[in-house]
Amino acid sequence: MRTFRLIIACPDRVGIVAKVSNFLATYNGWIHQASHHSDEQSGWFFMRHEIRADSLPFDLEGFRQAFTPIANEFSMTWQVSDSAVKKRVVLMASRDSHCLADLLHRWHRNELDCEIPCVIANHDDLRSMVEWHGIPFYHVPVDPKDKQPAFAEVSRLIDEHEADCVVLARYMQILPPDLCQKYQGRVINIHHSFLPSFVGAKPYHQAALRGVKLIGATCHYVTEDLDAGPIIEQDVVRVSHRDTVADMVRNGKDVEKMALARGLRYHLEDRVMIHDNKTVVFD
Amino acid sequence: MRTFRLIIACPDRVGIVAKVSNFLATYNGWIHQASHHSDEQSGWFFMRHEIRADSLPFDLEGFRQAFTPIANEFSMTWQVSDSAVKKRVVLMASRDSHCLADLLHRWHRNELDCEIPCVIANHDDLRSMVEWHGIPFYHVPVDPKDKQPAFAEVSRLIDEHEADCVVLARYMQILPPDLCQKYQGRVINIHHSFLPSFVGAKPYHQAALRGVKLIGATCHYVTEDLDAGPIIEQDVVRVSHRDTVADMVRNGKDVEKMALARGLRYHLEDRVMIHDNKTVVFD
Amino acid sequence: MRTFRLIIACPDRVGIVAKVSNFLATYNGWIHQASHHSDEQSGWFFMRHEIRADSLPFDLEGFRQAFTPIANEFSMTWQVSDSAVKKRVVLMASRDSHCLADLLHRWHRNELDCEIPCVIANHDDLRSMVEWHGIPFYHVPVDPKDKQPAFAEVSRLIDEHEADCVVLARYMQILPPDLCQKYQGRVINIHHSFLPSFVGAKPYHQAALRGVKLIGATCHYVTEDLDAGPIIEQDVVRVSHRDTVADMVRNGKDVEKMALARGLRYHLEDRVMIHDNKTVVFD
Amino acid sequence: MRTFRLIIACPDRVGIVAKVSNFLATYNGWIHQASHHSDEQSGWFFMRHEIRADSLPFDLEGFRQAFTPIANEFSMTWQVSDSAVKKRVVLMASRDSHCLADLLHRWHRNELDCEIPCVIANHDDLRSMVEWHGIPFYHVPVDPKDKQPAFAEVSRLIDEHEADCVVLARYMQILPPDLCQKYQGRVINIHHSFLPSFVGAKPYHQAALRGVKLIGATCHYVTEDLDAGPIIEQDVVRVSHRDTVADMVRNGKDVEKMALARGLRYHLEDRVMIHDNKTVVFD
Repeated sequence: MRTFRLIIACPDRVGIVAKVSNFLATYNGWIHQASHHSDEQSGWFFMRHEIRADSLPFDLEGFRQAFTPIANEFSMTWQVSDSAVKKRVVLMASRDSHCLADLLHRWHRNELDCEIPCVIANHDDLRSMVEWHGIPFYHVPVDPKDKQPAFAEVSRLIDEHEADCVVLARYMQILPPDLCQKYQGRVINIHHSFLPSFVGAKPYHQAALRGVKLIGATCHYVTEDLDAGPIIEQDVVRVSHRDTVADMVRNGKDVEKMALARGLRYHLEDRVMIHDNKTVVFD
Repeated sequence: MRTFRLIIACPDRVGIVAKVSNFLATYNGWIHQASHHSDEQSGWFFMRHEIRADSLPFDLEGFRQAFTPIANEFSMTWQVSDSAVKKRVVLMASRDSHCLADLLHRWHRNELDCEIPCVIANHDDLRSMVEWHGIPFYHVPVDPKDKQPAFAEVSRLIDEHEADCVVLARYMQILPPDLCQKYQGRVINIHHSFLPSFVGAKPYHQAALRGVKLIGATCHYVTEDLDAGPIIEQDVVRVSHRDTVADMVRNGKDVEKMALARGLRYHLEDRVMIHDNKTVVFD
Repeated sequence: MRTFRLIIACPDRVGIVAKVSNFLATYNGWIHQASHHSDEQSGWFFMRHEIRADSLPFDLEGFRQAFTPIANEFSMTWQVSDSAVKKRVVLMASRDSHCLADLLHRWHRNELDCEIPCVIANHDDLRSMVEWHGIPFYHVPVDPKDKQPAFAEVSRLIDEHEADCVVLARYMQILPPDLCQKYQGRVINIHHSFLPSFVGAKPYHQAALRGVKLIGATCHYVTEDLDAGPIIEQDVVRVSHRDTVADMVRNGKDVEKMALARGLRYHLEDRVMIHDNKTVVFD
Repeated sequence: MRTFRLIIACPDRVGIVAKVSNFLATYNGWIHQASHHSDEQSGWFFMRHEIRADSLPFDLEGFRQAFTPIANEFSMTWQVSDSAVKKRVVLMASRDSHCLADLLHRWHRNELDCEIPCVIANHDDLRSMVEWHGIPFYHVPVDPKDKQPAFAEVSRLIDEHEADCVVLARYMQILPPDLCQKYQGRVINIHHSFLPSFVGAKPYHQAALRGVKLIGATCHYVTEDLDAGPIIEQDVVRVSHRDTVADMVRNGKDVEKMALARGLRYHLEDRVMIHDNKTVVFD
């Protein structure tokens, strides 16, 4: 079913829901899904509607024009998108294939509702896997002594492929601040620990050293602060004294790819709203 | 925060949300929480609102009068309740104390928002525990040869204590059909298996025999069909070959009390709607 | 580290551990891992050792000869295997790719310690995916009116490829009794429900109808009784009223492939012992 | 079944298992359970046996005398205990009752195999609950300006009641270093976060601020380093944007009491061995 997805955040007050649902009813909009969240602490209100596209008398542009006065009245941060227009997702990887292979396979069997215009990697190892899926693969090596040219090329490729969203599928390089700013709220990373535990490098080694009984993974938006961006999804798996670091890495991979796939799905379906370095996820 | 909880189920069509939210906006009702569910298969629409009571100009009775025309227009099954009016929950138990003790303790520390007018049990073992909490305890033994008098007394006690809801906290007796009918949608049971696996007696023994790797518990509304009523909540815990039936019983108890406490909480907060032997749970 | 894996089941009595560990110590065998299980109900004892191969003065054949008298003395069912000799696993699939792709990828990145001599499928859809991995693909269609020729060919292929083990990665056909018998304890299936709930066809539809709050998957050995063989591994995922059957199918796929991958790993590492239609899994 | 529990840690080498199991076989000791762990990183070996007491010709003292030469030969850190001798556990609490009530109830229904000689609390609130269980309650207020006298009294009470083990069931006071040292490896704490995330005060507030999607609890041995001692058990529960800090506190309580109860059970059954600030837990 084709829907329009209307996403709204605004200061909370009486009458928001009535105003919006009145607007929709006026145009005979059939609400398929609706979610609300009133955040007491910040005093903000969040709202997501899925409206059957065929019940409405206008296209996206018409919707935007008609809705703008209401949005202005309530000082809304808002967007409306068409479920039939697939988001363009650029995947970035390094040598580890588990997250990339998982996303490619989900896309291949039509489980991930997006287009993947290309994959960018700092190593060439995964080229064949990507190309089997009919997706262009760009090898952009990163010179540790001068990373700038590589990231300029990465940025150029992202722009050239008109990406709506970038996924760091275990890319293993830290994006420079200017890229973080440029694509704010549009770059999704998977960190291989249960943040805020074990920020930075080699989290499984840190976990083994600390003797934790659960390890995890965190899917989050990238910000300039390393591993500190808004969290979309997390998950954990049990470990024990029997597990070596290698076992943790192996079991962790399953958690990483699951958390990333769920987080990306939420993003693609416009279910995630960022506010104050936290997320509202209408799952 | 005191709220009115408005619960609605009706055949799905355009304009329901607008009508209801308009109604609320007309009276300056401040929506604190709102949840919707459109069930494609049955064509029904479900809705739950929490509205700040102090934002509305009327009491429950006034609300009901004002809302009735809308409810009739849309053929709604509906109710409105006041969060400040605690539901009256009669607990029923047998000899096993884990579920009863858990509920009593949650109530004692104000975590369960209800009144417990009395506990009814077919054995006298748990009297002292109940009475320590200042709650009347009724011992109603069930004669296996003639159960009718006991259930007549149970029914009389439930009515006398004006129960809104009855919880079978491992009561271990099957309620007769007439009681199931009389208190339809108001009797909550905890079954010690992951239904529909292991219906009936001794589910942990059945589970051990089958060699399952997870055991569970199911919180459900009681109907005349044994262990077949609408499911509110389920949970599981991992077991292995090392676990004897006694271990399963012990670990299962933790799952039972957790699933029951969560299910009861949903019921008390008017989050559960029954439809077609299934539940919509607005958690 | 190369190890010999010694797996033993026998009637329980005093002195088994001493006898076996004495035997190992006599030959300076360095025990890397050891697990024991004494099953009170059946009176059987189960044991698994991993011994460093380079600490022993003999090869597998020498081990077998030296150990046989002890095995006979204690009426042991036993086997010893060499971790350096990879098991040969034939995968069988139909049209759904999620389990197959997952296993192939784990094998591809050296996470599954086995050889995959071929994939057999009753549809041709997954040929390209399999062949990209450099693995022969056999399309053996099953004629619903006369399935015998297809299963004869399947059996011939399994034998020709000297399979130690067969994995039904959502094969969607019921193996005939003679094949079940011939490969007893060596055919692993993934059933898309939390057995014993929802045996047979379309378990997610059954689950949706029953309104369960968790769905699951079961990895088990195939026997002549449909979906009733010894369970190796199970897992579940939470669902709600918001999930349609399609959502359950999608979420279920993740549970299926995880449960299957874990179950197969246990089997490949000789961690699973079958007894009385149940399993001991030394994880 | 009454058993002797033999717990051993020593540098790894060939022949340990043989030596120990030979010793047991010599005296016709019937091994009920046995667990081994060879830690590659540290080069240590860990071992736990449960031997049927009635199969052995000596009591604990006799066992110790007979086994000492072997222990010396292999430089073992070891102990043997009698399952029939219940450990004496002093519980310490403050105002929050959830962990205390949970442990008391488990003890009351014979699920926790220990004696509870007394409860010590820095507030008097929980006296009645404790005394209903027939357990002495000591109110030892802690003067924030001079905590020393209180902790001297706490130490005196622990000694007077001959505690084998102390459980901080949300005691909310930091034990002074001398007490940590005096009862090293014998004081179990429950921290209300998934360590090492959110060390210190108000972890749920920290979690809400960071916007995590799972919260947890950690059961660990107390050391002089705050919240940094060896972890015995951890668990988590999912939260979302809908959960306020109050909701997190409530849901967290369930995780806290479960993690503490499991961790304490492991300790009581001599399943936990501490090494290098980590634990081996033979569950």
